[in-house]
Amino acid sequence: MTQTTTQNRQIQLAARPVGAPKAADFKLVTTPVPSAGACEVLLRTVYLSLDPYMRGRMSDAASYAAPVAVGTPMVAGTVSRVEASNNPKFAVGDWVLAYAGWQDYAVSDGTGLTKLDPNIGPLSYALGVMGMPGFTAYMGLLDIGAPKAGETVVVAAATGAVGSVVGQIAKIKGCRVVGIAGGAEKCRFAVEELGFDACIDHHSPKLPALLAAACPKGIDVYFENVGGKVFEAVLPLLNTSARVPVCGLIAHYNATTLPDGPDRTPVLMRNLLTKRIRMQGFIIFDDYGHRYPEFAKDMGQWLAQGKIKFREDIVDGLENAPQAFIGLLEGKNFGKLIVRVAND
Amino acid sequence: MTQTTTQNRQIQLAARPVGAPKAADFKLVTTPVPSAGACEVLLRTVYLSLDPYMRGRMSDAASYAAPVAVGTPMVAGTVSRVEASNNPKFAVGDWVLAYAGWQDYAVSDGTGLTKLDPNIGPLSYALGVMGMPGFTAYMGLLDIGAPKAGETVVVAAATGAVGSVVGQIAKIKGCRVVGIAGGAEKCRFAVEELGFDACIDHHSPKLPALLAAACPKGIDVYFENVGGKVFEAVLPLLNTSARVPVCGLIAHYNATTLPDGPDRTPVLMRNLLTKRIRMQGFIIFDDYGHRYPEFAKDMGQWLAQGKIKFREDIVDGLENAPQAFIGLLEGKNFGKLIVRVAND
Repeated sequence: MTQTTTQNRQIQLAARPVGAPKAADFKLVTTPVPSAGACEVLLRTVYLSLDPYMRGRMSDAASYAAPVAVGTPMVAGTVSRVEASNNPKFAVGDWVLAYAGWQDYAVSDGTGLTKLDPNIGPLSYALGVMGMPGFTAYMGLLDIGAPKAGETVVVAAATGAVGSVVGQIAKIKGCRVVGIAGGAEKCRFAVEELGFDACIDHHSPKLPALLAAACPKGIDVYFENVGGKVFEAVLPLLNTSARVPVCGLIAHYNATTLPDGPDRTPVLMRNLLTKRIRMQGFIIFDDYGHRYPEFAKDMGQWLAQGKIKFREDIVDGLENAPQAFIGLLEGKNFGKLIVRVAND
Repeated sequence: MTQTTTQNRQIQLAARPVGAPKAADFKLVTTPVPSAGACEVLLRTVYLSLDPYMRGRMSDAASYAAPVAVGTPMVAGTVSRVEASNNPKFAVGDWVLAYAGWQDYAVSDGTGLTKLDPNIGPLSYALGVMGMPGFTAYMGLLDIGAPKAGETVVVAAATGAVGSVVGQIAKIKGCRVVGIAGGAEKCRFAVEELGFDACIDHHSPKLPALLAAACPKGIDVYFENVGGKVFEAVLPLLNTSARVPVCGLIAHYNATTLPDGPDRTPVLMRNLLTKRIRMQGFIIFDDYGHRYPEFAKDMGQWLAQGKIKFREDIVDGLENAPQAFIGLLEGKNFGKLIVRVAND
């Protein structure tokens, strides 16, 4: 089932998931290809980004962004091609970073579109290392984490779109970098390919002891993107004046109840106080949108110099997006998860 | 039982408390008055500061400062008079801020002593509004809290040494200030005498609803000095980009076990993330010692201008220090708790 010029396949939210999303929470619907009105462009999706934050949009719990309405397409960043244009700023054939969602076609008045240069690296990088995940890694690590050479930086989801970039930037800044990832193959990749100093398999029952052994001088920056048992293992190792940027909590996203007691909130609070720890949540474009150019300049250089490597996990076919997304929340992807909706 | 020139009464830690400290955890011991050696001074305690952090020193759990050893005097900041001096920097009759502990006399080589001018306000202010508590309020609120005019600032222990100053500085900065305190009389004082916009009695079972009603625009800065149920009531009201300086957790200090479950840590983490909240612990002299002069200048002016009021709760007699301290942890004091060890 491939993309056509006559139909707009959409993957809609069919039902709000309870716990882990399942296939039946999504629905593939075929609708007519929309038309570009006055001053509008018609966009065709080529790459679709799948990211953990989308689990939050499937829920109607209060959050920083509105939930996806049931019966409408799932949201997503996309790399799209302009197929028709009534807007003088865009020409047919232009490539843009858009927010077109899980569908083949979308219409836009140009708001929020960013033109992409197909001669600079893979277009899909706009959804990964040069886009939201890379920018998240860069600002969270450098602005909130503020690592100094010789300090120890720990990041989980170490081969993922954000974690892999966090660790490599920390290496560029002269830090000891310890990753946490799911399985021996990802850990090997983090150390051998990405240059981390160590990487711990979070499936190991000895996670706390292994992490402590890998961080003999404690932890100065913990880039929090998972939560749960990883954070529990990290907390006692945090040093005085440690910084904890909080960008995601994937271990919690599918939870339907809070963990069993006791309530460990006082343990966290006491650590914050006695170790003078700074912990700060951030939402990348809300907090740092104005600093994108500085990120793009640095990251472009690091990629050109081979200082940052970026692995993509590309799944073919829009119809496979739900299963790929379900796997993302289980840690099944290996690298930035992207759906190739069309071949070009 | 008053101070003499011939004996040094000490209140020693007799046993590490389990839960709330009790009288038997302290022991009054009479020892000889020490002598000042070469380059040393003999200090006589006149005012003794009692502060919540001392509960931490009674415990041998790992913390930012070493615990008091059993069988040695409890630690404390003091206003002391130089009674004998072999140190050219100090003359007999000088008043100093010292860290002499719960005793009549102590010897010092001058390290860490700060001379006080008895012509500038009450000497005891060096232990309160012009000292550690006032400095804590000032830096925590202004540097971490960074309140802007029109924002809502919430502080608990609103009539205490720190909270009362936090709220009054926030008023100077143009904020809406909501206090939380124990009992109607303290709440009345916070509003009528200190100028808070509202103050909620934390004994009320309706604390969450009352706090929400007093903060119609949510909470932008929560100055955390208590923890526990107050923090639980605050958390859902925190606004996007709120700041939470963490200076103390008095509600937890006597706890022997964690609260019953479920484990609410994920609730806190999710709030930090989705609301992009900054939460930061600090230990005043470790983090901000170098900024004391800026505080002293501002606070000196505010006091001179009558913009800051400061209530002291003065207890007479070193022998009454244990009971006063036990009461402090129960919220029985009304204002900065100080023991007057001698009349001059």
